[in-house]
Amino acid sequence: MANISIITIGDELLIGQVIDTNSAWMAQELNKSGFWVNRRLATGDNRVDILKALEEESTNADIILLTGGLGPTADDITKPLLCEYFNTTLVINEEALSNVKNIFINILHRPLTDRNLKQAEVPASCQVIQNKRGTAPGMLFEKKEKIFVSMPGVPYEMKGMMTESVIPYLKNHFDTNYISHRTLLTAGVGESTLADHIQDFEESLPPEIKLAYLPNYGMVRLRLTANSNQEGILELQLNHLFSDLKSRVKEWLVTDEDISIQEVLYKMLTARKQTLSTAESCTGGYVAQLITSIPGSSAYFKGSVIAYDNNIKKKILGVDPAILSSAGAVSEETVRAMVNGVIKIMGTDFAIATTGIMGPGGGSKEKPVGTVWIAAGNAHEIITQKLWFRFDRQRNTELTAVNVLNLLRRFIISLPAEKRPA
Amino acid sequence: MANISIITIGDELLIGQVIDTNSAWMAQELNKSGFWVNRRLATGDNRVDILKALEEESTNADIILLTGGLGPTADDITKPLLCEYFNTTLVINEEALSNVKNIFINILHRPLTDRNLKQAEVPASCQVIQNKRGTAPGMLFEKKEKIFVSMPGVPYEMKGMMTESVIPYLKNHFDTNYISHRTLLTAGVGESTLADHIQDFEESLPPEIKLAYLPNYGMVRLRLTANSNQEGILELQLNHLFSDLKSRVKEWLVTDEDISIQEVLYKMLTARKQTLSTAESCTGGYVAQLITSIPGSSAYFKGSVIAYDNNIKKKILGVDPAILSSAGAVSEETVRAMVNGVIKIMGTDFAIATTGIMGPGGGSKEKPVGTVWIAAGNAHEIITQKLWFRFDRQRNTELTAVNVLNLLRRFIISLPAEKRPA
Repeated sequence: MANISIITIGDELLIGQVIDTNSAWMAQELNKSGFWVNRRLATGDNRVDILKALEEESTNADIILLTGGLGPTADDITKPLLCEYFNTTLVINEEALSNVKNIFINILHRPLTDRNLKQAEVPASCQVIQNKRGTAPGMLFEKKEKIFVSMPGVPYEMKGMMTESVIPYLKNHFDTNYISHRTLLTAGVGESTLADHIQDFEESLPPEIKLAYLPNYGMVRLRLTANSNQEGILELQLNHLFSDLKSRVKEWLVTDEDISIQEVLYKMLTARKQTLSTAESCTGGYVAQLITSIPGSSAYFKGSVIAYDNNIKKKILGVDPAILSSAGAVSEETVRAMVNGVIKIMGTDFAIATTGIMGPGGGSKEKPVGTVWIAAGNAHEIITQKLWFRFDRQRNTELTAVNVLNLLRRFIISLPAEKRPA
Repeated sequence: MANISIITIGDELLIGQVIDTNSAWMAQELNKSGFWVNRRLATGDNRVDILKALEEESTNADIILLTGGLGPTADDITKPLLCEYFNTTLVINEEALSNVKNIFINILHRPLTDRNLKQAEVPASCQVIQNKRGTAPGMLFEKKEKIFVSMPGVPYEMKGMMTESVIPYLKNHFDTNYISHRTLLTAGVGESTLADHIQDFEESLPPEIKLAYLPNYGMVRLRLTANSNQEGILELQLNHLFSDLKSRVKEWLVTDEDISIQEVLYKMLTARKQTLSTAESCTGGYVAQLITSIPGSSAYFKGSVIAYDNNIKKKILGVDPAILSSAGAVSEETVRAMVNGVIKIMGTDFAIATTGIMGPGGGSKEKPVGTVWIAAGNAHEIITQKLWFRFDRQRNTELTAVNVLNLLRRFIISLPAEKRPA
């Protein structure tokens, strides 16, 4: 089975100015096509370090994928270095040149500088991968039976090249193993309790099938992965084991697909042709943007009132001022009134609401930072839950959002059939 | 100067199930304290690969920081392996044991399993770093004058250990170089035009000061970094060069601090004691969550109406149905009406609005995917801008959000003093 190392180039990665999202995406796509990424290495914009990385990873892997280090201000280091490593010289690639000209003249309407024109230079011995989304071309090299591909670090450009050129090329040139995953999502149970609960299942797995525990946002994903050179029997075996696993964890099961809680709700609500609105205080729009990150969510999501200020809670959501002054903004009474209010003004079948103290400021002895009330319901009934998180602002917000989406899921499945709005 | 390698352990990183945000945070914090991260390596939950990574990185760096591979279901591999590498055996650490017991009994109210108790086991030769936020203790080793620290991969737990224990320890044990950064943010100019514009400035920089171009969300950040063992003169020189750089890029300058556009607005509006509301269609809450991600934003942000559905635009924001049927939801007229509407119902000094087609569906010949209208204004005046993005849903949303926040910044600074609301 062909092994892959990913090398990401750029000082911005080593000083932490940007988060590397490229590698995760690449690994996912490569995995689906039967390739295994066994190392990921980040190195700086530095001749010695990049050469060392190339040398090392060519002993670790059959395929070495590089991202970054290209672009109008980074070309000076990476391209001459690739020429040195592959013992060649820079030449102008005509197709890349007309691409650069087209982008500047016809799309950006910006003056074309010498620096831009130099982007069309590539090492003479490489196979050029044209960039349909930007100015820096990709470059594919072969050396001692290893394949090296250098791509720009801009995610959108790299993804296009990978999908359209690099992965198809690799599939043509390497025998790939058969890899298959089955993933389910649980809520309301810890990793160690799950592990104890299914210990005998895990111990009885055949060597070509592995179980992984993937805790994320207060939920735990369980993934079975089969990795073998024979497809048919393995797939049957995997299905059988996955059914077994599902029935063992059924009390905590959210979904048996590898999707997020917002995708679960998308599927439930579009299938039922029912609608949702949200009323957010402490999450400040985070719940709505999770919901709307799913393409097609407009089919069921009508909108939201982000009532960050108490006056907005009163004026737009119609929360009784008496509730706010007696129970306070972070209370069960308020979060219920928010659900009621947003259903009234948006006319949706369901609504969810959040109110809490995300930190670092705003806590009190009675309501410390991390105190949150969430609610989900319809025009007839509302369920609520009090949460208390001990994390930072970002994580408190993320956890609140995932919990309120799961509360809605629980509310919907608990409804007796006759109570479900038409 | 002490060099650091970061090793992240976990199959979930190699199959792309999670994005590594730990490394970026660690690099930032280490950098501030004068340490240089020169490699980051991700490897799987696999004995041979982890041992190889330890061996290799101990030749590349003085300090090797490991994250991940600890936790109730991962301990089986990593801890015995650390014992093997450091030639020692597992023993129970009493303080870690009472921490595990306390978390399960007093905080989680969950049954304590044998697996949880095993988390208190550590290699006998290590210095234990207690985990105040979770059950897996950190472990510090010394071998052949190199320092190795193993920490859990949960970001919140790792961050606590780094801040409270690891960085203070490293500062005590290594001479650190003096590192200082100056960063500014530009908008409305490409990386290559900037590079040409300041080419002579860049070429005249002394060897101990470097300039980096960091494109992000359609804006370009410029960063000067000084790295030397003498502090005083360098700091003066850096200030002088930074002033020069600022004046050279003043037409595109957004801020001369290393902060985001939402932090720029937070500072502007809290200083002016003025308020903001938003009306979002296509961004679905993304703008509001960027604004509210800044602690203390409730001082100026009142709330938002996410009018994903056209009926909500009419009913709550008061957009004239005639505008929606003639010009359409994605139009200058609609985005203006959204600003007007939200100012009216939220009573804020300023408001911003977005409407557009984020994709992949919903485009037409006249209004293709990526067509967006944004607006910013007050009760007297509104400015608008049409954008056209060629990216995916996620990136179109991020770019729209950053552009509308920058439009508001431009609107506010363009106001004559007498027109600014009190």
